[in-house]
Amino acid sequence: MDFPGLVGPRFDPGSVWLVGAGPGDPGLLTLHAAYALGQADVVVHDALVSEAILSLAPQARLELAGKRAGGIRTQQLGINNQLIRLARQGQRVVRLKGGDPLVFGRGGEEALALAAAGIPFRIVPGISAGIGATAACSIPLTHRNLARSVAFATGHDSSGDLAAVDWHALSRGSEVLVFYMAQRRIGQIAARLIEAGRAPDEPVALISNATRPDQDVRIATLATAAEAVRAVPPGAATLILVGSVIALRPLLAAWQQTEPMTVEASNAKASGATPPARIHA
Amino acid sequence: MDFPGLVGPRFDPGSVWLVGAGPGDPGLLTLHAAYALGQADVVVHDALVSEAILSLAPQARLELAGKRAGGIRTQQLGINNQLIRLARQGQRVVRLKGGDPLVFGRGGEEALALAAAGIPFRIVPGISAGIGATAACSIPLTHRNLARSVAFATGHDSSGDLAAVDWHALSRGSEVLVFYMAQRRIGQIAARLIEAGRAPDEPVALISNATRPDQDVRIATLATAAEAVRAVPPGAATLILVGSVIALRPLLAAWQQTEPMTVEASNAKASGATPPARIHA
Repeated sequence: MDFPGLVGPRFDPGSVWLVGAGPGDPGLLTLHAAYALGQADVVVHDALVSEAILSLAPQARLELAGKRAGGIRTQQLGINNQLIRLARQGQRVVRLKGGDPLVFGRGGEEALALAAAGIPFRIVPGISAGIGATAACSIPLTHRNLARSVAFATGHDSSGDLAAVDWHALSRGSEVLVFYMAQRRIGQIAARLIEAGRAPDEPVALISNATRPDQDVRIATLATAAEAVRAVPPGAATLILVGSVIALRPLLAAWQQTEPMTVEASNAKASGATPPARIHA
Repeated sequence: MDFPGLVGPRFDPGSVWLVGAGPGDPGLLTLHAAYALGQADVVVHDALVSEAILSLAPQARLELAGKRAGGIRTQQLGINNQLIRLARQGQRVVRLKGGDPLVFGRGGEEALALAAAGIPFRIVPGISAGIGATAACSIPLTHRNLARSVAFATGHDSSGDLAAVDWHALSRGSEVLVFYMAQRRIGQIAARLIEAGRAPDEPVALISNATRPDQDVRIATLATAAEAVRAVPPGAATLILVGSVIALRPLLAAWQQTEPMTVEASNAKASGATPPARIHA
């Protein structure tokens, strides 16, 4: 795929680009993101980023972000140090995250660590799951007279407990609610929303592996969401949407085209190069 | 700029792609969006979409969306009919909007009209201003312990009055609040938020022409936002952000690189083609 006339900004050795990979379809990468992958010496990626997207960086060394051991706080410090070390070695570093780096992606923590270490960085926004996943299953996130406000929230805090938000206010402040990483807490969340006055039969969408070939969408209600979540594919990234906009889906889905962009499997091999080195740190 | 190995999905004659152009920097187009512009026979675009982005559709006829006369409802019906008419002529139609088509972009209304007319369509998400504009001025939209929830809201309803949202609940439900198209109502909004218990000295960011060369960022407080908005460039698309995450900006801005992607002016002319026909309907 060729876009004549486009010229990317300089990607200097010793700098880090914090890049959002979007929800999964390689076509939802931004031009900056695809360009950065082509320029990178090393790509530090999350486990959820797909092989198809990683294949757009055929010359780069791939490192899985962080270590599996330790709590999430230790892991995040490990990733911060990994980025600083690679930049100080003079590499062009892409830190590749699913969705958007700054929407529940901890990109702000990495940016602060880089700034504190005196390392230039760039933030490349990505299509966040709240926006990309809902569009992919024919649900308009906002719609006149149905949604004047949309809230994006996490289901849990950093300890894994139910997030310490004002559930009553959240429920009444926005017609549409989008929950990230909330599978395990959806039963509690739904109960809080019903307590706050949302109707038990209000629709809920559970969207897993959005925009990927194995996308899985389940429609439930606040009353049945805890039951419905048990059928979600294990290990999937699942977005949970609450709101009457879900009722528009049957009107749209039959006419909506959703084929993803494909990456030829021979991308790396066609040039005679060996497959990229892969370090699972 | 060349991305070998990428293969886009079919864009059939007689179909419409509802495409988000992102906040302004051409590099924040998705690959699907840039590909669609290259395939389109006609691009129906909003007034705010930049010349640089439109130049990525050198073979397409450009039509400005809707008519200037009439209320917003009449205009929207006009755009719906414009899209249906062009698709029925067998054109490949791109409907290009700033930001994301479904985040306060009325893309849902256009998709419903197309579905009702039996016209296949695709929704191509874009980087919404709430995400792209805040990143561009070094503000993490979420940050651990500062933002468990983010709400996106409009400042006004379809009649132009202050939006009929539960301001008290919106204020208490999300630590970070993002207001679209709210310049004219920010004084009223700030007063409601202070009434609901937000601190008068809480920071507010007014971000105009985000990610463009003429980006303009003003930092104020809830108490001073109504005064600060008077200095915003007239006619600009301005996003208004409220939240303590704004306090992180001075820690990040000095190290953040933000050069946009550029499009060579000779893009259309290099091939010997005449400049694209432009119809301002």
